[in-house]
Amino acid sequence: MLPKSQLQFIKSLHHKKFRKEHGLFIVEGIKSITEFLQSDYTVHHIFHSSNLGPKIDIFLKNVKLNTITERELAAISTVKTPQGILALVEIPSDEPINYNQLSGNFTLVLDTIQDPGNMGTIIRTADWFGIHKIICSENTVDIFNPKVVQATMGSLAHVSVVYTNLTSFLSNINVPVYATLLTGQSIYKTDFGNEGVILLGNEGSGINQNLLPNNTIGITIPRYGSAESLNVALSTAICCSEIRRRE
Amino acid sequence: MLPKSQLQFIKSLHHKKFRKEHGLFIVEGIKSITEFLQSDYTVHHIFHSSNLGPKIDIFLKNVKLNTITERELAAISTVKTPQGILALVEIPSDEPINYNQLSGNFTLVLDTIQDPGNMGTIIRTADWFGIHKIICSENTVDIFNPKVVQATMGSLAHVSVVYTNLTSFLSNINVPVYATLLTGQSIYKTDFGNEGVILLGNEGSGINQNLLPNNTIGITIPRYGSAESLNVALSTAICCSEIRRRE
Repeated sequence: MLPKSQLQFIKSLHHKKFRKEHGLFIVEGIKSITEFLQSDYTVHHIFHSSNLGPKIDIFLKNVKLNTITERELAAISTVKTPQGILALVEIPSDEPINYNQLSGNFTLVLDTIQDPGNMGTIIRTADWFGIHKIICSENTVDIFNPKVVQATMGSLAHVSVVYTNLTSFLSNINVPVYATLLTGQSIYKTDFGNEGVILLGNEGSGINQNLLPNNTIGITIPRYGSAESLNVALSTAICCSEIRRRE
Repeated sequence: MLPKSQLQFIKSLHHKKFRKEHGLFIVEGIKSITEFLQSDYTVHHIFHSSNLGPKIDIFLKNVKLNTITERELAAISTVKTPQGILALVEIPSDEPINYNQLSGNFTLVLDTIQDPGNMGTIIRTADWFGIHKIICSENTVDIFNPKVVQATMGSLAHVSVVYTNLTSFLSNINVPVYATLLTGQSIYKTDFGNEGVILLGNEGSGINQNLLPNNTIGITIPRYGSAESLNVALSTAICCSEIRRRE
């Protein structure tokens, strides 16, 4: 049985304002929750309507496990078809950017990505290709938005995402900046070396031109047909694949 | 002014059953509609609530152009935020598969893709990479589903999609079959040559194992991190990019 006040509290976490206020976000589904339980994230509460609880017992440390009804779960869930289990997870405190860690690594830098599905897919893609850090402009969609969390399929637990002022960030780095543009050099002919940041822009308007440092290397995925553009999550995947295939 | 009967008729096209019955589907937005007007598709009616009509005048052949109110447009639209213009387009009759056209080309073959967003993105990706033909299993999502049409961003006008029995199709072809599997050879080390079909499977269960011919070449996108899987539209994009980068 879920008291009404708690139900309201959890529902409030569907909204960014209250996630920020309470420092908690929602994760749903046994797979994703297991990833968070096995990560550095702190899982506070788990609510489940079926016998999924025992399946994750081995990972439970100080997590409160509550059995609730299907109807209660539907009321607090962020998805149309709840997956039987929902967790409240602590939003970690902002880590300062460690500029030294950029050396010898590839980092994704996102300017104003707005679609939660794209954002989640980009995080999942970064995780697949072993890219552990993403830097976002401050107006990029909130990664703790339930649709983003859902689309990461648990990968949010493995990738660190930092929001910052990109102008300042880009002026402070000592690794090459590769920016995905419509008029850059072919990614197939680009020597990515072993480090750099890959800058990707907004779904509609691309990268804010004022952001680009003078020494930016513009890169493009060559087009062989008629489509006007490629979805940003797909562009990310193709760039990540290109970087790794050289190694 | 839109008579109620016509409004009901257009709304019925949101559903597959009535699209099939009437042989029409809905396209929204000036960009997508322009793509269809410039293609072999037959555009029957255009409904618009603003002064978008004149912008496409040059492409209009025998298209009936109707000005309607914003409220009427909202009633017939398939999206939350209508884009001011909606067209009824004729579903072309099924073309028989021309097996000779498979030679010297790459073709995507989709087994049971179910998510309309994925399907639309795959069509857009194929268009970007100049792949003009997609063969689908009969239980793959309908390409005239409004969410698919929307996600193709007009690319549906450039890519031919055929539904067929894949077992029979795959037993009749004379080009290599590349199937995306979790246990195949690295796509980075695969010599794709200049022709073949790329077989991609369902979002959850992958490719039906019974489909795979004996001489299938299993291919895999190598994983460098922890994500359990890659979205099928992303896998498609990475495969298409690999094929083209060799040329």
